[in-house]
Amino acid sequence: MPPETPQPQATVRDVTQILTRTRGLVDPVLRRAVQQLHPHIGEMAGFALGWRELDGTSRVGQNGKGLRPAIVLLAARASGARPEAAVDGAVAIELVHTFSLVHDDIMDGDERRRHRDTVWKAYGVGPAVLTGDTLLALAMDTLAQAGTPQAAAALRRLSSTLLELVRGQAEDVAFESRPWSCPDAVTVEEYQAMAAGKTGALLACAAAVGALLGGGSPSATAAMSRLGRHLGLAFQAVDDLLGIWGDPEVTGKPVFSDLRSGKKTLPIVAALASGGDGASRLASLLGARPDDVTLRRAAGLVRELGGLAYTRERAELHLHEALRLLEAPELERTAAGELAALARFVVDRAH
Amino acid sequence: MPPETPQPQATVRDVTQILTRTRGLVDPVLRRAVQQLHPHIGEMAGFALGWRELDGTSRVGQNGKGLRPAIVLLAARASGARPEAAVDGAVAIELVHTFSLVHDDIMDGDERRRHRDTVWKAYGVGPAVLTGDTLLALAMDTLAQAGTPQAAAALRRLSSTLLELVRGQAEDVAFESRPWSCPDAVTVEEYQAMAAGKTGALLACAAAVGALLGGGSPSATAAMSRLGRHLGLAFQAVDDLLGIWGDPEVTGKPVFSDLRSGKKTLPIVAALASGGDGASRLASLLGARPDDVTLRRAAGLVRELGGLAYTRERAELHLHEALRLLEAPELERTAAGELAALARFVVDRAH
Repeated sequence: MPPETPQPQATVRDVTQILTRTRGLVDPVLRRAVQQLHPHIGEMAGFALGWRELDGTSRVGQNGKGLRPAIVLLAARASGARPEAAVDGAVAIELVHTFSLVHDDIMDGDERRRHRDTVWKAYGVGPAVLTGDTLLALAMDTLAQAGTPQAAAALRRLSSTLLELVRGQAEDVAFESRPWSCPDAVTVEEYQAMAAGKTGALLACAAAVGALLGGGSPSATAAMSRLGRHLGLAFQAVDDLLGIWGDPEVTGKPVFSDLRSGKKTLPIVAALASGGDGASRLASLLGARPDDVTLRRAAGLVRELGGLAYTRERAELHLHEALRLLEAPELERTAAGELAALARFVVDRAH
Repeated sequence: MPPETPQPQATVRDVTQILTRTRGLVDPVLRRAVQQLHPHIGEMAGFALGWRELDGTSRVGQNGKGLRPAIVLLAARASGARPEAAVDGAVAIELVHTFSLVHDDIMDGDERRRHRDTVWKAYGVGPAVLTGDTLLALAMDTLAQAGTPQAAAALRRLSSTLLELVRGQAEDVAFESRPWSCPDAVTVEEYQAMAAGKTGALLACAAAVGALLGGGSPSATAAMSRLGRHLGLAFQAVDDLLGIWGDPEVTGKPVFSDLRSGKKTLPIVAALASGGDGASRLASLLGARPDDVTLRRAAGLVRELGGLAYTRERAELHLHEALRLLEAPELERTAAGELAALARFVVDRAH
């Protein structure tokens, strides 16, 4: 009997192929759009999109993962259309995603992303604000100028998603001034509502925009939207795990990054919600000056109090819901299979 | 023979009535939209829109002039529609205008606006970035959710205008690092191209959006767009005069504000373009540390070199072009007359 092919390996190969194929369709259109910008802004946009270094040299193979554009194109295919029908949507979603990274890094004071300086750190706050504004304007304009009824519906969806995104970000910012301990600590429910807006909304929009541009029915579009929301919540849960236990070599951020910057992420919120002595000890560790010994102890305590297990369980649950939605018989099978591979990939990053 | 009514007085009374009437239609819709936002953001948005003080008390009678919403509604009426048809457009334009003030103040480091701290100065840079993003998202969503073909056309126009706005802002920022003297000094032509984008674009969009929502023909919409562009350029020229010679009591900014902050505005660029000894003296004054004596001398020199006269002439010229466009016979006469009163008011601020 031949040895079984290990499932994760096959998934990674599939996913790499999907992302490469997506990039082949989306990148040329994205680059043409960015080339029309003011040269200074185009330079910063290229840096934010991972195409160029600070010194102007071009950069290959280290772009963002391109997960969102892939979801757009696959959602269009799952709705029975060719992926080409949804390229403008994929461009718009990637631009909005990049806009939100550039502005969120200013708000959060984050200095590093993907092993490089963030845009505000590299070019200054003012130019980073303008770069974000420009990416957002370009996103809206890409769909607005397409001029079809499908594109108009996609634009409506994108603009309501933007309101969800900024509300999620506002909630995240408001969490910063909340205490670590009861009764005013951030609850698990509040955290999940924030994450549904901040990360879930754009992935839900990516899948819905793909379905809309692919001519999907209202019910198929709604199902795709739900799929994207679950994927986003799984993604955020995994990101929260990596924000504490991720390898700095892989994440491009310092070790214990989220603990260091005092972020209230799901493992921490869940651990604090366990109550009792452990939670009190954790709260006082998190309130202390963050040296490496304290951070290591806090990370250990978060795990002990069940924060890691709970967060992993949430990721698996949302993955499960996403996979279940992909079993719907009206979906084109190959595309649904590829979306499932992407979904598994998102969660497997945590292992 | 009875004494002639002085024309400027009548104009001011007309304009006050127009602006009050506009506010009556637009403010309730604008307030309802802002009330849906996250409370923290709603608070900052209310501050930026001039509705509330930092301490949360409400504020009356000191809003922005509301010129742009008035142009939107009058453009709809000039196209034969009722002003109610264009209220969503007026709300969207006012939101985009406020977004651009909030973000531009961050980029320019301006600490005062309308006799108060700017949003970033009052609440911090991060919250100001998010407030601007939210105002922009709300603007787009207001038109997107209206769902009519007219609103879709208005949204297309607004999204291409956003690209013009950010390009104009990028040019303005790039001017800062240009030298005061030839051969690399900013030219009058470069300045005017920047101003056409930065200020002209949004006023052109306001008038065009009004025409589109009012069901105006493509040629009427194009004429309204040209009218708005001229109005914007007249407005910017007058703002540039007030930025040097304006009364701080009226402008809410320090005396010689634009000279103090080293901005390259039209009177300065025109004075420097005169060449010769005077221009060289001006360039070295502008390059020096800005104490009040130097600033007064520089302002005198800008006037002597013709910078004031040239800028006033440009304002009059754009006003003249705007008034000429308003003579078109297909425009509803009362609305055209009110637009003319607004246009004169914009330029008369300089006297």
